[in-house]
Amino acid sequence: MLVLSSPSGAGKTTMSKRLLAGDPQISLSVSATTRTPRVGEMDGHDYHFVNNAQFDGLVATGQLLEWAHVFGNRYGTPRGPVDNALSEGRDILFDIDWQGTQQLRQSQAGGDLVSIFLLPPSLDELHNRLKSRAADPEHVITSRMSRAADEISHWAEYDYILVNDDPGQCLHEIRSILTAERLRRERQRGLAAFVRDLLAGE
Amino acid sequence: MLVLSSPSGAGKTTMSKRLLAGDPQISLSVSATTRTPRVGEMDGHDYHFVNNAQFDGLVATGQLLEWAHVFGNRYGTPRGPVDNALSEGRDILFDIDWQGTQQLRQSQAGGDLVSIFLLPPSLDELHNRLKSRAADPEHVITSRMSRAADEISHWAEYDYILVNDDPGQCLHEIRSILTAERLRRERQRGLAAFVRDLLAGE
Repeated sequence: MLVLSSPSGAGKTTMSKRLLAGDPQISLSVSATTRTPRVGEMDGHDYHFVNNAQFDGLVATGQLLEWAHVFGNRYGTPRGPVDNALSEGRDILFDIDWQGTQQLRQSQAGGDLVSIFLLPPSLDELHNRLKSRAADPEHVITSRMSRAADEISHWAEYDYILVNDDPGQCLHEIRSILTAERLRRERQRGLAAFVRDLLAGE
Repeated sequence: MLVLSSPSGAGKTTMSKRLLAGDPQISLSVSATTRTPRVGEMDGHDYHFVNNAQFDGLVATGQLLEWAHVFGNRYGTPRGPVDNALSEGRDILFDIDWQGTQQLRQSQAGGDLVSIFLLPPSLDELHNRLKSRAADPEHVITSRMSRAADEISHWAEYDYILVNDDPGQCLHEIRSILTAERLRRERQRGLAAFVRDLLAGE
């Protein structure tokens, strides 16, 4: 389980998409949310868009690994796709915030989790990126900047810290982390059998 | 401190040289040895070639982080260059065997050590590589094959396990590990100050 967190505007979603596009061994955990779709967002691809009653149902039946309120809406991680990916030995990417990461770490699925936090090079840069999206009114941007500071204050809870001042370099770094973590001895299934056969000359 | 171990012939020295050539942030720990130089080996570059009395002196004055007997010769890691590199915040690469790795882990310098073990794809392949070097007589190759099995039996003491069936891919994996390990939160000096300045809007 690979978690990618960052304040809104620091490149988390762009990095996630580019990582997923170039690596068939990892798939995205698509969150469920009660918020309204933005222009261009597709149900089941960007989010599972559900109403409040449906979200209540997911919570009540234990189908969310974690969930939280953000800006008056609810967001959560469906359990099924995570269980499936992990049982197949595949990796799964979580594009979630610090609250979600904490809950995921404490959840039943939270055994083998690697977490990355993306920092913006500066708050000015972050503000510029949020403004250039042009989808949100100024009071929402102000609110997001305040929330960004809150998110950043949790940086020390993550395994890896990256400063995203060059998207290409940042993607290279995320891929390096994924490559390295997959090569850790305890994650390689069948290694003991491989060495046994190797020493037996097979 | 990055340790690269493998049985003789599995590509450790080639990988070390290529890694060092492409990355100015890491330097090699050059071992001291009492063995005779091979053709092409340079004193101070491949090894520090010393006689038995000189080696005794290094041991007696505590200038070796670790040392061991291998094939009737002694090999050891000088302390000075390691201390210098680490105090300057630079990385240092160790091309040593499992004995050296164990001792290095227990030595005073052994706080922050990342270890990689290279496996050959097969013992036949390893035998071919040792023969193609053509520098050693057959009884030495037989002895190295026996020692290779011994070395391989210690694979589970390492953080990362790589199967070197493609040198280009193997080098890419070693570089990814180095890139990732440098991005670990606890290894990045000045990160707390960077975040403090970031949140202060500087």
